[in-house]
Amino acid sequence: MRVVVPFAAEQPKTRLGDFFTLTERREFSGAMLTDVLAAIRESGHEPELLATAPVERDVPTTVDERPLTAAMNAVLEADSSIAVVMTDLPLATPAALTELFDISEDVVLAPGRGGGTNALVARHPDFRVDYHGTSYLDHREGARRIGASVGTVDSFRLATDIDERADLAEVLVHGEGAARAWLDRAGVRLVRNDGRVGVERTGNG
Amino acid sequence: MRVVVPFAAEQPKTRLGDFFTLTERREFSGAMLTDVLAAIRESGHEPELLATAPVERDVPTTVDERPLTAAMNAVLEADSSIAVVMTDLPLATPAALTELFDISEDVVLAPGRGGGTNALVARHPDFRVDYHGTSYLDHREGARRIGASVGTVDSFRLATDIDERADLAEVLVHGEGAARAWLDRAGVRLVRNDGRVGVERTGNG
Repeated sequence: MRVVVPFAAEQPKTRLGDFFTLTERREFSGAMLTDVLAAIRESGHEPELLATAPVERDVPTTVDERPLTAAMNAVLEADSSIAVVMTDLPLATPAALTELFDISEDVVLAPGRGGGTNALVARHPDFRVDYHGTSYLDHREGARRIGASVGTVDSFRLATDIDERADLAEVLVHGEGAARAWLDRAGVRLVRNDGRVGVERTGNG
Repeated sequence: MRVVVPFAAEQPKTRLGDFFTLTERREFSGAMLTDVLAAIRESGHEPELLATAPVERDVPTTVDERPLTAAMNAVLEADSSIAVVMTDLPLATPAALTELFDISEDVVLAPGRGGGTNALVARHPDFRVDYHGTSYLDHREGARRIGASVGTVDSFRLATDIDERADLAEVLVHGEGAARAWLDRAGVRLVRNDGRVGVERTGNG
């Protein structure tokens, strides 16, 4: 089974734009990619990239400038057994990915917080993705429409995509890889808020 | 093993105070409790309540008015094999709880978002809880200090505690129990924001 990692090479993590410069967002995004590629490899699979622009990585890469949904569906049209793992999952573990890959349903979804789909496996020729809106519900509905069976993976680590400032706290609490190291170097630290923990930046790293 | 569910009977879910009245917060909190008790029973365990005031439930209940940390540590002092499952986990599944209960370490933690501890198992006589601040890190450190081994459960459903308005979207996307039904009756609906999905209230239910 091919394991495809979509990668926004040029304008990654726009919702972190208030907290990091574009250069920093590219670096941080690259560190998260390093973590995700390592977890996929440790799960026994060889990842490939679906990137919006050429990237310098020792990974088979397809460049497709189109938005994620269109680019990913072109891959799904060409091959009916595909896993998709998002880049912004620096907490992904080989164990959680193995569970995702091993559930033998036509469509397997790893939900993200806020209704997203952070990783999936598609083994049905008619399944297509739609990453706009509440993609988790849309993917379930899409699978139902084509008569595909659906499984889900219950994983906090796969559910934790890093999009917003508050999400960085999860990397500092649970991360041990390149993304965590990058945040440490950038001077990003945990800080207690009213409820859940947040982050602040204590220096220029 | 005893499975204890702490329950704030009188002033539950204060961070939902802008969205629900006190009566509504009590009803919703009670619905979440119903879901959690059902999941624990389906996992093969008999839950008991640790409540801040008497509650009308067909569950063995200890009333302790003290803050959660003090009340829970009194339980841990009296019995060295205890599971603690928070009330605000309406997405908890019997499968995730079974995984939590079955990991045979001295201390087993189910992390919540934002550094919390949403459920745990303690099998070491010296382990004590501290629910202030980043309790997940504090509990790891506490276990290390007493030489207790630590395991973790990787579960999105156990990580998803319902504290804030945005969290209600998770119940609408993934929930199927009493809490979901209560939100439906109260007219709480999914709404798309910029990034993750949110909720709005379309009527008085």
